[in-house]
Amino acid sequence: MNRRDFIGALAGATAATAMTACGQKEEATTTAPAQPQQTFEWKMVTTWPKNFPGLGTGANNVARLIEEMSGGRIKVKVYGAGELVGAFEVFDAVSQGNAQLGHAGAYYWKGKIPSAPFFSSVPFGLTATEMNAWLYYGDGLTLWEEAYKPFGLIPNPAGNSGTQMGGWFNKEINSMDDLKGLKMRMPGLGGEVLKRAGGLPVTLPGGEIFPSLQSGALDATEWVGPYNDLAFGLYKAAKYYYTPGWHEPGTTMECMINEKAFNELPADLQSIVRNAMKVANLEMLSEYTAHNQQALKTLIEKHGVVLKHFPDEVLRELKRLSLEVVEEAAKSDALSGKVWASQKTFMAQVSKWTEVSEQAFVASRAL
Amino acid sequence: MNRRDFIGALAGATAATAMTACGQKEEATTTAPAQPQQTFEWKMVTTWPKNFPGLGTGANNVARLIEEMSGGRIKVKVYGAGELVGAFEVFDAVSQGNAQLGHAGAYYWKGKIPSAPFFSSVPFGLTATEMNAWLYYGDGLTLWEEAYKPFGLIPNPAGNSGTQMGGWFNKEINSMDDLKGLKMRMPGLGGEVLKRAGGLPVTLPGGEIFPSLQSGALDATEWVGPYNDLAFGLYKAAKYYYTPGWHEPGTTMECMINEKAFNELPADLQSIVRNAMKVANLEMLSEYTAHNQQALKTLIEKHGVVLKHFPDEVLRELKRLSLEVVEEAAKSDALSGKVWASQKTFMAQVSKWTEVSEQAFVASRAL
Repeated sequence: MNRRDFIGALAGATAATAMTACGQKEEATTTAPAQPQQTFEWKMVTTWPKNFPGLGTGANNVARLIEEMSGGRIKVKVYGAGELVGAFEVFDAVSQGNAQLGHAGAYYWKGKIPSAPFFSSVPFGLTATEMNAWLYYGDGLTLWEEAYKPFGLIPNPAGNSGTQMGGWFNKEINSMDDLKGLKMRMPGLGGEVLKRAGGLPVTLPGGEIFPSLQSGALDATEWVGPYNDLAFGLYKAAKYYYTPGWHEPGTTMECMINEKAFNELPADLQSIVRNAMKVANLEMLSEYTAHNQQALKTLIEKHGVVLKHFPDEVLRELKRLSLEVVEEAAKSDALSGKVWASQKTFMAQVSKWTEVSEQAFVASRAL
Repeated sequence: MNRRDFIGALAGATAATAMTACGQKEEATTTAPAQPQQTFEWKMVTTWPKNFPGLGTGANNVARLIEEMSGGRIKVKVYGAGELVGAFEVFDAVSQGNAQLGHAGAYYWKGKIPSAPFFSSVPFGLTATEMNAWLYYGDGLTLWEEAYKPFGLIPNPAGNSGTQMGGWFNKEINSMDDLKGLKMRMPGLGGEVLKRAGGLPVTLPGGEIFPSLQSGALDATEWVGPYNDLAFGLYKAAKYYYTPGWHEPGTTMECMINEKAFNELPADLQSIVRNAMKVANLEMLSEYTAHNQQALKTLIEKHGVVLKHFPDEVLRELKRLSLEVVEEAAKSDALSGKVWASQKTFMAQVSKWTEVSEQAFVASRAL
């Protein structure tokens, strides 16, 4: 009897005793051999302030779910932006194996991977539910894996903000002219659209937005939605709050995994890690959906924020520019072309379904 | 050294050897004691035909996820409607412990639990995303657990169809008069609304719908949406396909757990079981969203189905009747009142957010 068989035999004996003691018949019928339970200590770096509502708590959620489901066989220590590495160093840290997990938004990496923004959010693109459909039941996730593979990373959807808000302004936006010369924080492809409209897009991590807006280094900003924007106090530095978030209609957050670390896990832990991210994906959207309206109400009623809709003519022109920008971005490299072709075909279908079903219902509920 | 310590010591030795062999430093630093791995053989009964797209595959998905994440420590055998028990006997089978899991829709149990329909879908109620927000971040799931507790059951959201279609008809619905005397399959509170509009609602399990519609025992039916309705061949027995599904704007499917069986699981397996259902919840909605439009296209272009919108005046009247029916249902017992009060308050908030954010965006995308 070798050592493994011996442990198995002992475990079997223990389990048999336990079964008799609690009198189970149907549910617990057999025992698997006991195995040495290797444990793993992982680090998660994030692009968000530690514990920030929705985003930071979403990252914590991934860590908690992995620990809980694995019975502590994987422990995950979460670091906020700047604690272990800076917000925009998350990608490299996980790629190099200095952390095993990285919670971020894919559009932050468009300098390294031209197709990356297609996996977070595209201006006038997919909503949260449509995005999940493309990722899990279209080609989305497979293409995303192809994009991150050369960096030794496995991407995962791990959260969604839902449709974001269009941003904070200190003047009304009545025509395209009002966007000209505007210094506005707006990352990703949305920023490119703003540039084409004559604006000056800036990419800043969340934590630097409020001071920049307050000091006048920024004229305007977008961030996420009421739940997050209230937490950052953006209402203290801008008066008008615009909808809809045409530039981020349903932004997927990611949790990337260092591929080598993932491959060292046994199959059950691999499944736990990947499914923890799916749970976190669902929970983040639910959290935002539950909290946004209450926060919007507070912004309007307590802080005097003025809620405004972009005029149709502005949206129509932003949509035209968005399509230009996205089609050009799709020409950046071969993979971007493939990704956009897949997403565009999917969107042509799914957006019709959204109109026929949920949009028709929401309109009828308001009759 | 007692037996448990001895197994732990052996396991530690094995793991230490393995660590040296593969040279891991950071990720794998410690080993937990080996434990006897008790395994569980569970049965899942369902109200759906085995392997039925979306619903049956969603049930299979829960089983697969539990097995994968538990490394086979829980095995789940899935039974279609009628294989072990009939579709509408699922609740009793799990309550009595003849099966450990039951995949169904809560509104099927309104005869036993008056508040049950509030946990699946309410006419002119919450959409899928709003429903998840109420269940996970409002009081929804806690109230649902209260409702099922007396039956020894733990409820879980485990799927969502998204906004359903309004149904299949052999005549146009131009006014409320067209609903009078109509024998239509429609379960739950939607059926009550139809009755109040002068129709004759019938509750039938999915598998019996098509033959009843074809034989003329039914004049009309609702089922789910294009993906499922195409699979049932409903287009062969009716011509007009109406939207929106006012009676089921975002139906939650459930997977109930026998409480005693659940309590016998160790904590990690309990977490795996409950989170598998969250993953299945996300995946089912994604699957429907990905497939519905293609199926709708096939119905229209290949099978000559005519897509129609209910007229606003019909929807307005159905909404008025729905509110009457729901308010009365909320008076059935104390818990129903508590559940509706919670859902109604939540809906008043969240529906405003949906209009400000996603609905405003979807409208702008169509400009």
